[in-house]
Amino acid sequence: MVSDLAGFLTTCRTALGAAHVVTDPDVTDAQATDWTGRWRGSTPAVLRPGSTDEVRTVVHAARRHHIALVAQGGNTGLVGGSVPHAGEVIVDLRRFDELGPVDAPAAQVTVGAGATLAAVADHAAAHGLTVGVDLAARDTATIGGMVATNAGGLHVLRHGSMRAQVVGLEAVLGTGDAVTANLAGLVKDNTGYDLPGLLCGSEGTLGIVTRVRLRLVPRPAARVVGLLGLPTVTEAVAALPVLRSLDSLQAVELILDSGTQLVAGHLGLPVPLDPLPGCLLLVELGGAGDLLGELGSALELLGQAVTDSAVADDDAGMARLWRWREAHSEAAAALGLVHKADVTVPLSDMPAFVAAVPARVQAVAPGATTLLYGHLGDGNLHVNVVGPAADDDSALDAVFQLVVDLGGSVSAEHGIGVAKRHWLERQRGSAAVDAMGAIKAALDPDGILNPGVLLP
Amino acid sequence: MVSDLAGFLTTCRTALGAAHVVTDPDVTDAQATDWTGRWRGSTPAVLRPGSTDEVRTVVHAARRHHIALVAQGGNTGLVGGSVPHAGEVIVDLRRFDELGPVDAPAAQVTVGAGATLAAVADHAAAHGLTVGVDLAARDTATIGGMVATNAGGLHVLRHGSMRAQVVGLEAVLGTGDAVTANLAGLVKDNTGYDLPGLLCGSEGTLGIVTRVRLRLVPRPAARVVGLLGLPTVTEAVAALPVLRSLDSLQAVELILDSGTQLVAGHLGLPVPLDPLPGCLLLVELGGAGDLLGELGSALELLGQAVTDSAVADDDAGMARLWRWREAHSEAAAALGLVHKADVTVPLSDMPAFVAAVPARVQAVAPGATTLLYGHLGDGNLHVNVVGPAADDDSALDAVFQLVVDLGGSVSAEHGIGVAKRHWLERQRGSAAVDAMGAIKAALDPDGILNPGVLLP
Repeated sequence: MVSDLAGFLTTCRTALGAAHVVTDPDVTDAQATDWTGRWRGSTPAVLRPGSTDEVRTVVHAARRHHIALVAQGGNTGLVGGSVPHAGEVIVDLRRFDELGPVDAPAAQVTVGAGATLAAVADHAAAHGLTVGVDLAARDTATIGGMVATNAGGLHVLRHGSMRAQVVGLEAVLGTGDAVTANLAGLVKDNTGYDLPGLLCGSEGTLGIVTRVRLRLVPRPAARVVGLLGLPTVTEAVAALPVLRSLDSLQAVELILDSGTQLVAGHLGLPVPLDPLPGCLLLVELGGAGDLLGELGSALELLGQAVTDSAVADDDAGMARLWRWREAHSEAAAALGLVHKADVTVPLSDMPAFVAAVPARVQAVAPGATTLLYGHLGDGNLHVNVVGPAADDDSALDAVFQLVVDLGGSVSAEHGIGVAKRHWLERQRGSAAVDAMGAIKAALDPDGILNPGVLLP
Repeated sequence: MVSDLAGFLTTCRTALGAAHVVTDPDVTDAQATDWTGRWRGSTPAVLRPGSTDEVRTVVHAARRHHIALVAQGGNTGLVGGSVPHAGEVIVDLRRFDELGPVDAPAAQVTVGAGATLAAVADHAAAHGLTVGVDLAARDTATIGGMVATNAGGLHVLRHGSMRAQVVGLEAVLGTGDAVTANLAGLVKDNTGYDLPGLLCGSEGTLGIVTRVRLRLVPRPAARVVGLLGLPTVTEAVAALPVLRSLDSLQAVELILDSGTQLVAGHLGLPVPLDPLPGCLLLVELGGAGDLLGELGSALELLGQAVTDSAVADDDAGMARLWRWREAHSEAAAALGLVHKADVTVPLSDMPAFVAAVPARVQAVAPGATTLLYGHLGDGNLHVNVVGPAADDDSALDAVFQLVVDLGGSVSAEHGIGVAKRHWLERQRGSAAVDAMGAIKAALDPDGILNPGVLLP
């Protein structure tokens, strides 16, 4: 099977218009590298289809000419899932940016796969609604990419991951067929296999998502953010039941003293609590009730476990507190190339896990910097390691081994991508991976969709 | 390919023990017919495996000996999905009745596929928790069957369908491989395709579910039930926004005057509201707040739309009011063989749909009795037709055509089974059905699992 790139691009130019078949190296090189710089690929072309029919034409032509494709939205993924590692052609979905009318009684909206999270959230805000998933890359990340990766983010403990937000969708499978499921947004539609749920989290390996029917959630009338200082992660985990009992709880994020100091240096700011405690919880409440009163009661219940705290209920103040959590990623990136793990461990093992990780990393990558932070309410931590070369997986492998030994997950929310392919089977077992491979072969029989991603 | 039943049963007797390979016609005949009597099949044997390894052995042997299998739990399905239509061997999962310890902090439990809904709900009740899905067949329906059919029921508007309750599971695929996914109940596990979501609603055609990790929901501290009389379905639909705004809303069920009169005759009771209004809404609130006050405020807001009402907050009184809704199914069955449709239509079309259905049925089945009732809060109605012979689909076909014309779903919650196979493609389109067929071939390559069900 010899691939025929020239023939493929000719077909695409006819179908999409020459302006939407980009081979300018300035563009193709930029889109072939992810924003972290950790994943670099190369591509002969970036396609920018504008309709589902055009995507169908692209996939059919790719099958005919033996061309592999990588679907791309905002390219903000963290596991190399949207990067052309072996010269795949990029299918850029960002022209699919339509925002359908908000169905306020149903609290739903249909949007194009290329609409950014921020655009959809702004669109819904006029109706007192928002998207149930939020994450720091909201201005760039697209809904299609978030569906393909089953994105998590800041409010999973409140609203679930992206799969829980997807009511229906339209996608072009690897066969070239366009399928739709419940774009009308029926509350109940139990007709056959759950194609939306299957495509959600499939990382572009089964189909290219083109449109999504999203459920929306009430936009909290008001918010309060508290930054709580606690001596160690043990006290932080122990505080969770009290925090979870708050009706208005939206997020519980963990940062540590070491990461906070790094962010302080990066931002040129004094640390937020002085003296800086070993562990900080960023807690957000949202709703229409007495949020400050609710947070105050929680602090009273937590007693001396919380050694210091800062609270804000104005936009600027809340943004300042959130910045300590959200700037972790960019502070790590400023140190150099970042190896990223994103893991779940049982909450009871969380203190021991946080204590053990830096030493495990040091053992295989002496001198490396390790940052730990994340969504404590979900038992989900991000591990950032700076130091090892791009092709040196030893530090993350040490972290993943610890996770699997504890019965955790090597991917809480980022997905498998290329970064964790060799860990998929170690966590899930060969039978589950075989089943995934069979599903892949069923919906992408020629293996042209994101061939290097997710599956071994 | 010649099937070798004798060889298959010999293998099964060795693996399961002879006592768990039942060929007594009294048993096999009973389990080959569903409880409604609408679906009758025949089977040479009922297998009762007691472990996942035994199920693996059964499936491997079935592949080797070319034997088709039907998995069966409580056999309370309504679309013929658990009945051996072509002499399939029944795999009865009811020995998988273990109830794992309730993980109260996580609000989760792992149970065997054969545990009944009532058993799991009782088990969870000791911790102030319950299952998010409830339905009238709770004493017989098993968790495995509810997962396989993605059961809906009375509280979908509050907690979602069964798929939303499944955190993880174990199943034996048609390949004979046992797969597990997140039985540890991690809040986030984004490692590959969503096998639990795919198996949920697959109606036994892809794998046999053996164990399920369920999320649990708070068991309301108290409940209040109101039966609200309204002139027509138009007023009932218009009342939904007010009812949905109640924080403690658990269910909104619709019954009509005709069905209520039928139930009154069946139960030998006077009608619950006299004079009987055209339309009745059964509303349940649950929680720790002032439920009677909440319902009272709602009634005030609804004003003269509600012409009469009955309210109960004691167990016996609430059960009496629920009986008017729950007895519809048995009252219909007492009239004769029941053809059951279970459909969603857009709420804006609901009044016209309810008005049109009896005439559509009469046009093709003169003299038939049509009952309409169901989960109005979800836009989901059950249509029961008594009159036509078992093999006469014309009445339901007339109903389904109307549903598809309105952009609704021919299965809101019951599934496709054999009852609606010929409607699947008309609603979902050939591309989606082709994709389902490809997935079926991938996970059940010999087509031995429930071969006559779901797919055309």
